[in-house]
Amino acid sequence: MAAGVNFENLVIGQSASLGKTITEADILLFSAVSMDINPLHLNEEHAQQSIFKGRVAHGMLCGSLISALLGNSLPGPGTIYLTQSMRFRAPVRIGETVVATVEVASLDQVRKRATMKTMCHVGDKLVIEGEAVVIPPSEAMAEAAD
Amino acid sequence: MAAGVNFENLVIGQSASLGKTITEADILLFSAVSMDINPLHLNEEHAQQSIFKGRVAHGMLCGSLISALLGNSLPGPGTIYLTQSMRFRAPVRIGETVVATVEVASLDQVRKRATMKTMCHVGDKLVIEGEAVVIPPSEAMAEAAD
Amino acid sequence: MAAGVNFENLVIGQSASLGKTITEADILLFSAVSMDINPLHLNEEHAQQSIFKGRVAHGMLCGSLISALLGNSLPGPGTIYLTQSMRFRAPVRIGETVVATVEVASLDQVRKRATMKTMCHVGDKLVIEGEAVVIPPSEAMAEAAD
Amino acid sequence: MAAGVNFENLVIGQSASLGKTITEADILLFSAVSMDINPLHLNEEHAQQSIFKGRVAHGMLCGSLISALLGNSLPGPGTIYLTQSMRFRAPVRIGETVVATVEVASLDQVRKRATMKTMCHVGDKLVIEGEAVVIPPSEAMAEAAD
Repeated sequence: MAAGVNFENLVIGQSASLGKTITEADILLFSAVSMDINPLHLNEEHAQQSIFKGRVAHGMLCGSLISALLGNSLPGPGTIYLTQSMRFRAPVRIGETVVATVEVASLDQVRKRATMKTMCHVGDKLVIEGEAVVIPPSEAMAEAAD
Repeated sequence: MAAGVNFENLVIGQSASLGKTITEADILLFSAVSMDINPLHLNEEHAQQSIFKGRVAHGMLCGSLISALLGNSLPGPGTIYLTQSMRFRAPVRIGETVVATVEVASLDQVRKRATMKTMCHVGDKLVIEGEAVVIPPSEAMAEAAD
Repeated sequence: MAAGVNFENLVIGQSASLGKTITEADILLFSAVSMDINPLHLNEEHAQQSIFKGRVAHGMLCGSLISALLGNSLPGPGTIYLTQSMRFRAPVRIGETVVATVEVASLDQVRKRATMKTMCHVGDKLVIEGEAVVIPPSEAMAEAAD
Repeated sequence: MAAGVNFENLVIGQSASLGKTITEADILLFSAVSMDINPLHLNEEHAQQSIFKGRVAHGMLCGSLISALLGNSLPGPGTIYLTQSMRFRAPVRIGETVVATVEVASLDQVRKRATMKTMCHVGDKLVIEGEAVVIPPSEAMAEAAD
């Protein structure tokens, strides 16, 4: 796995994205892990009667792509995840492709922390928005890891 | 599935909890769903060399129990999930039992929204803390659902 | 998790239901767990040539919803599962929603056991019928669990 | 996959067995499929406080091995599963190996049905016992399938 981007090399506006098509299998596995067996996710007949008019993915299932991006791409390996906020704006359905994006919003030069804007889209529609604060890897840490 | 607790019946301080022992299988399935294949979660040899000294669970895996509680227990079925914030305070290891707790923190009588304090503990240690804003089911919605 | 319904509070005719849409992922996971790799469940070409004219779910996969209901809803947490009989009356296909129902059929006041009628339907069609005998939680047990 | 044993070739006392070591992954996947998230299966701390003194497998998870044997081994492919009864006699724990056995108990020459004695053991301990009635494949069916 490639090394992450060190704090010193991060630039405001820099971004990375990761897409995934949400399948019934994703929803089933996420239900197992989260213990969230709400019929909106697992029972099509029930979900048809709801305001969503069909099964929807767990919000945090989609949000988990953000976590993957931060830890694997930007800043990437070595990042320490401090906080995440999420606003769930629209449901995601089976078969839709969610694209998560993280973007460097601000850099705290004193504490060596980055604030990342975090978003999930389905096509042009923003389905989750929020913000993460992370400690990116530093040059010192990268050397220590060698 | 039992109906959720209507906004009108929520009381500040009311709480619910859900516990789960984190297994290797949880971590594998969460990696698959989230595309988070970071070696801190999946490679014991790599993780031994990290500051964590061993594999740790994905923060959002533990956080997903909060989502399950809000949707299934308190307020429960019919709840609409608006926002979630999480501060990751300590790692969770394989074999540890995470107990998620949600507690009614404030009630917005005008907008019919509840702010929930959300926490995850391993034993006495607070590992995640945060806050969620939800729209609980209302009496009108409950009647419509019958 | 909410406490179960004590023996003393069970009423003949009381019932609970749980629905689930059967997906390809359910069939795959159930095959893995049960070691039942019959082509009727996993090989569409083979299943098309069979009397079922397509893949069908494992009977016990659908039956397992009954077990979930008894342990989680009625009587619920604390219940001890003694026996289960099932008659498989019709196949269940991928994409169909199975609704399991358990109903208190008789109460043995001496031995503190409940006989539950257990059914699974797809729409109006009865696909599995049977009976379970359980030891519901009792007041004494509930107090001991506090 | 080998063809099943035709009704005409079944002999009373004939048997087949299938063993499986029950893992945390089995329990997690079975929870997802069955929607049975009872803490006796998923929460070690809770289960330690119960009469079981630790997490146990879902009874039907173990029972599902019987279904696999009937459909895949004896009588095997082509069998139609009519009924199953199960008596749960003892819990099964993570790491234990369950051996399921099915044995021809009686043959109804008029209706061409077989009654099978069905058992699950952990070592010498009988954990599930019961009975299944099946329609084995017949020579006519085997020819039709060619």
